[in-house]
Amino acid sequence: MTTPHPVHLLGALFTTGDMREIFSDHRRLQAMLNFEAALARALAREGIASKEAAAAIESQCDANLFSIETLAREGALAGNVAIPMIKQLASLVARNHEKASAFVHYGATSQDAIDTGLVLQLREALEEIGNGLSRISRALVKLVEAHESTFLAGRTWLQHAPPVTLGLKAAGWLSAIERHHARLNQTQEDALVIQFGGAVGTLAALGDRGPAVASALADDLKLGLPDLPWHTQRDRFAEVATSLGLLVGTLGKIARDISLMAQTEVAEVAEPAAPGKGGSSTMPHKQNPVGCAVILSAAIRVPALVCTMLASMVQEHERGLGGWHAEWETLPEICMLAGGAVAQAAAVLGGLEIREDRMSENIEVTRGLIFSEAVAMALRSKLGRSQSHQLLEEASRRAVEKNQSLQDVLLSDAKVREHLSTEEIARLMDPGNYIGSAREMTRKVLSSLDRKL
Amino acid sequence: MTTPHPVHLLGALFTTGDMREIFSDHRRLQAMLNFEAALARALAREGIASKEAAAAIESQCDANLFSIETLAREGALAGNVAIPMIKQLASLVARNHEKASAFVHYGATSQDAIDTGLVLQLREALEEIGNGLSRISRALVKLVEAHESTFLAGRTWLQHAPPVTLGLKAAGWLSAIERHHARLNQTQEDALVIQFGGAVGTLAALGDRGPAVASALADDLKLGLPDLPWHTQRDRFAEVATSLGLLVGTLGKIARDISLMAQTEVAEVAEPAAPGKGGSSTMPHKQNPVGCAVILSAAIRVPALVCTMLASMVQEHERGLGGWHAEWETLPEICMLAGGAVAQAAAVLGGLEIREDRMSENIEVTRGLIFSEAVAMALRSKLGRSQSHQLLEEASRRAVEKNQSLQDVLLSDAKVREHLSTEEIARLMDPGNYIGSAREMTRKVLSSLDRKL
Amino acid sequence: MTTPHPVHLLGALFTTGDMREIFSDHRRLQAMLNFEAALARALAREGIASKEAAAAIESQCDANLFSIETLAREGALAGNVAIPMIKQLASLVARNHEKASAFVHYGATSQDAIDTGLVLQLREALEEIGNGLSRISRALVKLVEAHESTFLAGRTWLQHAPPVTLGLKAAGWLSAIERHHARLNQTQEDALVIQFGGAVGTLAALGDRGPAVASALADDLKLGLPDLPWHTQRDRFAEVATSLGLLVGTLGKIARDISLMAQTEVAEVAEPAAPGKGGSSTMPHKQNPVGCAVILSAAIRVPALVCTMLASMVQEHERGLGGWHAEWETLPEICMLAGGAVAQAAAVLGGLEIREDRMSENIEVTRGLIFSEAVAMALRSKLGRSQSHQLLEEASRRAVEKNQSLQDVLLSDAKVREHLSTEEIARLMDPGNYIGSAREMTRKVLSSLDRKL
Amino acid sequence: MTTPHPVHLLGALFTTGDMREIFSDHRRLQAMLNFEAALARALAREGIASKEAAAAIESQCDANLFSIETLAREGALAGNVAIPMIKQLASLVARNHEKASAFVHYGATSQDAIDTGLVLQLREALEEIGNGLSRISRALVKLVEAHESTFLAGRTWLQHAPPVTLGLKAAGWLSAIERHHARLNQTQEDALVIQFGGAVGTLAALGDRGPAVASALADDLKLGLPDLPWHTQRDRFAEVATSLGLLVGTLGKIARDISLMAQTEVAEVAEPAAPGKGGSSTMPHKQNPVGCAVILSAAIRVPALVCTMLASMVQEHERGLGGWHAEWETLPEICMLAGGAVAQAAAVLGGLEIREDRMSENIEVTRGLIFSEAVAMALRSKLGRSQSHQLLEEASRRAVEKNQSLQDVLLSDAKVREHLSTEEIARLMDPGNYIGSAREMTRKVLSSLDRKL
Repeated sequence: MTTPHPVHLLGALFTTGDMREIFSDHRRLQAMLNFEAALARALAREGIASKEAAAAIESQCDANLFSIETLAREGALAGNVAIPMIKQLASLVARNHEKASAFVHYGATSQDAIDTGLVLQLREALEEIGNGLSRISRALVKLVEAHESTFLAGRTWLQHAPPVTLGLKAAGWLSAIERHHARLNQTQEDALVIQFGGAVGTLAALGDRGPAVASALADDLKLGLPDLPWHTQRDRFAEVATSLGLLVGTLGKIARDISLMAQTEVAEVAEPAAPGKGGSSTMPHKQNPVGCAVILSAAIRVPALVCTMLASMVQEHERGLGGWHAEWETLPEICMLAGGAVAQAAAVLGGLEIREDRMSENIEVTRGLIFSEAVAMALRSKLGRSQSHQLLEEASRRAVEKNQSLQDVLLSDAKVREHLSTEEIARLMDPGNYIGSAREMTRKVLSSLDRKL
Repeated sequence: MTTPHPVHLLGALFTTGDMREIFSDHRRLQAMLNFEAALARALAREGIASKEAAAAIESQCDANLFSIETLAREGALAGNVAIPMIKQLASLVARNHEKASAFVHYGATSQDAIDTGLVLQLREALEEIGNGLSRISRALVKLVEAHESTFLAGRTWLQHAPPVTLGLKAAGWLSAIERHHARLNQTQEDALVIQFGGAVGTLAALGDRGPAVASALADDLKLGLPDLPWHTQRDRFAEVATSLGLLVGTLGKIARDISLMAQTEVAEVAEPAAPGKGGSSTMPHKQNPVGCAVILSAAIRVPALVCTMLASMVQEHERGLGGWHAEWETLPEICMLAGGAVAQAAAVLGGLEIREDRMSENIEVTRGLIFSEAVAMALRSKLGRSQSHQLLEEASRRAVEKNQSLQDVLLSDAKVREHLSTEEIARLMDPGNYIGSAREMTRKVLSSLDRKL
Repeated sequence: MTTPHPVHLLGALFTTGDMREIFSDHRRLQAMLNFEAALARALAREGIASKEAAAAIESQCDANLFSIETLAREGALAGNVAIPMIKQLASLVARNHEKASAFVHYGATSQDAIDTGLVLQLREALEEIGNGLSRISRALVKLVEAHESTFLAGRTWLQHAPPVTLGLKAAGWLSAIERHHARLNQTQEDALVIQFGGAVGTLAALGDRGPAVASALADDLKLGLPDLPWHTQRDRFAEVATSLGLLVGTLGKIARDISLMAQTEVAEVAEPAAPGKGGSSTMPHKQNPVGCAVILSAAIRVPALVCTMLASMVQEHERGLGGWHAEWETLPEICMLAGGAVAQAAAVLGGLEIREDRMSENIEVTRGLIFSEAVAMALRSKLGRSQSHQLLEEASRRAVEKNQSLQDVLLSDAKVREHLSTEEIARLMDPGNYIGSAREMTRKVLSSLDRKL
Repeated sequence: MTTPHPVHLLGALFTTGDMREIFSDHRRLQAMLNFEAALARALAREGIASKEAAAAIESQCDANLFSIETLAREGALAGNVAIPMIKQLASLVARNHEKASAFVHYGATSQDAIDTGLVLQLREALEEIGNGLSRISRALVKLVEAHESTFLAGRTWLQHAPPVTLGLKAAGWLSAIERHHARLNQTQEDALVIQFGGAVGTLAALGDRGPAVASALADDLKLGLPDLPWHTQRDRFAEVATSLGLLVGTLGKIARDISLMAQTEVAEVAEPAAPGKGGSSTMPHKQNPVGCAVILSAAIRVPALVCTMLASMVQEHERGLGGWHAEWETLPEICMLAGGAVAQAAAVLGGLEIREDRMSENIEVTRGLIFSEAVAMALRSKLGRSQSHQLLEEASRRAVEKNQSLQDVLLSDAKVREHLSTEEIARLMDPGNYIGSAREMTRKVLSSLDRKL
């Protein structure tokens, strides 16, 4: 008997309860048994096995009837766990219905059960991740809508640059998330297909009935029907990995941004507080960005796991030696880490504490230097590109050296005063006047989203 | 002045002349200059710069006017090569048309030139790779059509298994290549868009004219127009990497299969011979699978480079620190290796030497053991799953121990003879009678392909 | 209460029972508690805590007193499991000895417990792996000694080349394993040190007593004492990863060689047979190289996990955000996969079935072509490099075209006969006469090994 | 003729001129020719070739006599460039000394020339990197010595924590660099050995003279002599990769720290300024941390390239198919990126601008909260662990809510005042009183270093 909900010390941190459940040993086993049950039904539908035989098989396809421990031990010898599982299933069936046991796993090979079982688990996992993406998008839409006029310093190379809006920043995140959602949908369409080929992919054991049984099996499991088996053509599974890898990269970018904005000196945002959340054993005042840490750790780990999935595609002839095995723990791990990162991102973004006062204060840190481009552009049509650029370079350097604001330096610069009035200079130093098309861009993102919904 | 066609000692081995050309320093520079020229034209179209100014800028956007050496040296200080390039471009323009120089790079940031330049290079590279995929598909269609009745041993775990057809094997390769082609088309649609956002992605330097200029720029370059800049949203570039990574995985699988079939003891295929091809300095008789070696080396290298692209997605705020830089050599390297692998695969598959005699001989190596499943299935309905399986296990073991063919062992087994006649046993040992739905599957692949064409 | 020996469906395949045990949740928790107990004793030894307090703490440092489930849940909020563990430990202690609870985790930070705990687990894991390497070496020494005159075809580019000896082949494996053993010893010396720095690595909470307590702690745990804490200097942990990564690469090479030699057409070796080992659900005759598959899957997975460990070294300031977290599951996974691969290699090499008859037969497959170099070298001093090479190239081509042995072609070649007698030609085609210094090399490897023992 | 110093657009940014030179095509070719010349001398020393023949060969081993273009083209067919190089060398030699040409490459195989050539390049590269590490260490020793009493905020999870010293921070960096230097020395000893085995590693073409020639060759090239050839035992090359990978991880950590400290809001350090360094095309005031960006990009790229080197270790039989090829560009790339990162780190650390005023100011940002641990520890012996921790948690929360300093909150807390005087509280809030053993630790690092020098 298996424990249906195994506890893992780090599991709650790095993934969700649902994902742990989906990829538990119990569910892995049950998914393979679901394949066997569906195969029995398909054989019956095609008149190869009797309805009674199919029912007899189906009744034993229950993971609770199997010992994980025995399967693990025998699977280690056999090279995969489907072999002892099928053997045990056949003997369970034979106890009640001797003849039915002939139709256990009829026409199939171990890999058919293992791969289709994993596809069934992936279906649930990808749906779960898709739901998480929807939650993230909803949280981001709110942020975008609420903050199209919240100004903060733009930052390039981790140095202050001209201002942006929080709305634009969040719209950039949102736009990427939407692209990932589309990729996920495509991947679901590409990858959620049955595996059914028999020993070498010819379905030879079924004579000429292979395609009919395959079609019935796909119908039964509500999975796609590929043109031919893909025992050693692993691009579908690898695509699941790459789609999730791309997604986790974007989540990592969001987490990096938030954790940088949450730094003590910056303090523009904080992860949502909760009892017991993000404290330190020795520093009672701390509010650590735990969600970001988890997401960033996924963004470090998942790319390498994607590499493994791509490297394991080189599988030999009709059944891979090593490459196939390399997938078994790797693809679930990618899903679990991606699912964990998605859940953390949804929680962090859904409750993000935003301190607009700190954003305004931080814009002032350079005392106007971040508006040098604005002034340079204003002077460009008058002085030419090179001279205006040089003029602002010097003014900026003077401001730093003399510890003055750029505004004061510019006001006292005769050359600048030839072309710009006091009012014009002040206007150029107002963040609200130098955010270009930020609003238009954020609205474009929102309206693209509307079109899809 | 640059050398337009740099020679690299290993370049001809690992990639193609076209790919080396596309990603040469000269072309990288020219692609950025093409962005600057297109920007000038777009500014003119929107009435921001004069037509003369645009023409003056355009006339200097020629890589031959620049020194790679100077740009390399100054770019190393500046942190990217666009900075000195733009400076030099402005001064070249100013020599003839002082006022026009004000509109050099007007409203843009270095990253706009660098990213859009790379997009222009990618457009050519992906088209080249797409053409290569078409060549591969054509070669595979021929193989599939010619060999639907060419039997060879199926091989699982590198051990003989029931027979397959060469047509089915090639159809598996073909089917995967077609999926990669579809992914490539999708990626071209997703990734071939302009980058244009100015310093922090707001296009602030263009006031409210940013979107109009962006739209004109996209038209001019015949690239897509994204909803907003993607300076630190790198999923598009990373998707180029993952799509090519998936493709190279399949090419590696094909090369592994071919190189295993080309082993001296197996000798079922050989890479196409050519003067100077695959010889050895010390072993005059050798015909080494050089093409497969190159493809397999790409299949080892590209997954890790994809990992780099995914890991580099974590880019800070409005401009990344390190992540962006990590892409500059990595993405071209992925394209070049993928391009090289595609070209080698097209050549190898296009001229593959096939020895059907060896395939037939090799089927006999196990003296009938690979047909044990066929016999077991034939007995299954009579003896049940477990007993028929066990009977064949014993017969197979006896055949090995006594150094007899399985057919002889079966003919002398009373239990077997109860259910199977001599003729039936002989029929079961004929490869042509145990390839199941191989023909139907290969035809399905071909007809899927027809539907697309 | 924890289950001390959790069962994992795939665990028995990919790693060993001992490694699963070492890295179980229970042992991870106990290792952290061992740190806390040792710290209490060290505080007592330095007179900071009383002996009674230390004893009171020690008595509660038992993983069976803790709930994995609670720690998992609270650790997910806190960001690591040490925080709730310490809180719970303090309250357990306080029930019996209120004052002692003040000295729970005194002066330490969560990371001290987590890192030192992992070091304690690594100590066991590396010792286990070292023992496995000794078993592999012993098996290889036997192979080398037994087969210094067992000839088989050398193979380059997967094509036959001049002969080698099985002894030399195994000596190459052995020599690499010995280098890995030396690296492992160095890594044990480098990495098995305590982590003890308090909140930010200054041991500030201990006033000026930090170094004394650290020294007592290291003594107590029999671990090395580093010059300073290494909370964000992760090269020691990363070195564990790289040393194991290098090792697994060599194991992968051995497994690739063996699985290629075990192919049906080659059949020179087979993995040791065992009941239930390597069978197939549908092909009763098969003896699959399951051990090699497991090793090869580790050789695909571990390199990417090493990449993760290297990438995670970029940890911020005094405590990493994401990088540290990325190590927690990755380093144990590397150890478990390496441990599994070592165990499989020891088993495969310890019982490898060797078929010398097949090796001899396979040498003949090219009908003498693999001796073309031997003949070319014999002619070289007479005809010069270029002419002798060319002569053999032509003879080899003729042999292939006319389906003759190279010996027959040479015997009928006037030019060759000028320089070589029938006896000389026959002598040149004898594998025993063209293995150069193979024996001397293998003996050198064995004697290097003796010097170390 | 080759261009000895090829210019690459991005080369000056990502690596050094010396490293580009070492790994140029010209030097790669010359290194292989150096092998051939040394082999000729070794053959002469052992009396196999005449001194005249050796001299005749040696005289032609000059890369300037070869066409990179021809070698590239023919190498692409042959599968490696040594094959056409040797052919061309033999014909160059034959023009002057027909008989000598018989001794070109005598007894060797292509891989001997390619691998030993790469070892010769690695010798130079590793020496260069070692020199860079010495420069880094010298810069760090200065930082450590100058700043043992420069206080700044400790930072964990990117949040302020108790104070540290800049000396301790730099000592952590220094200590890791010293460990990497030791690893590099070990790697030089392990990896700088000749490759010499002939076609299949037996040196068969040399009869029984192989070991003598090998020994003479190693002497001549001043490289180590391995027990046997290592054509498919690649742990030595892979160890070069892992050692550099570990090093680059630490450099990335240093660069991350510095770039975070250089953020506009933090402003505690800046990269050394230089004309043209780190400016922006649009933001004249910016001083971008270009050196850190380059180092961080190496820290993203090198881990994946190390993964490639580990994955490529799985090489078949006596010569790898794909794995060997995968090394050719990867290992040089790792060296070049590591060399570039080392040079940038030496420059950044050698001229780092340090603003102690900002460090002091930043310590105050939390208004005393970072000293909560100090106060909690002071109260712990009086109130117990749990109560003192809780008390400070509440005080910290109150300070944040009421916008007061922690000192003021504590002064007004009756419970605290029972145990701590005003002076004691003030003393606890002084960074100089809460740096624990930072000074002792930094001195320990310096004295460990002295012992080695």
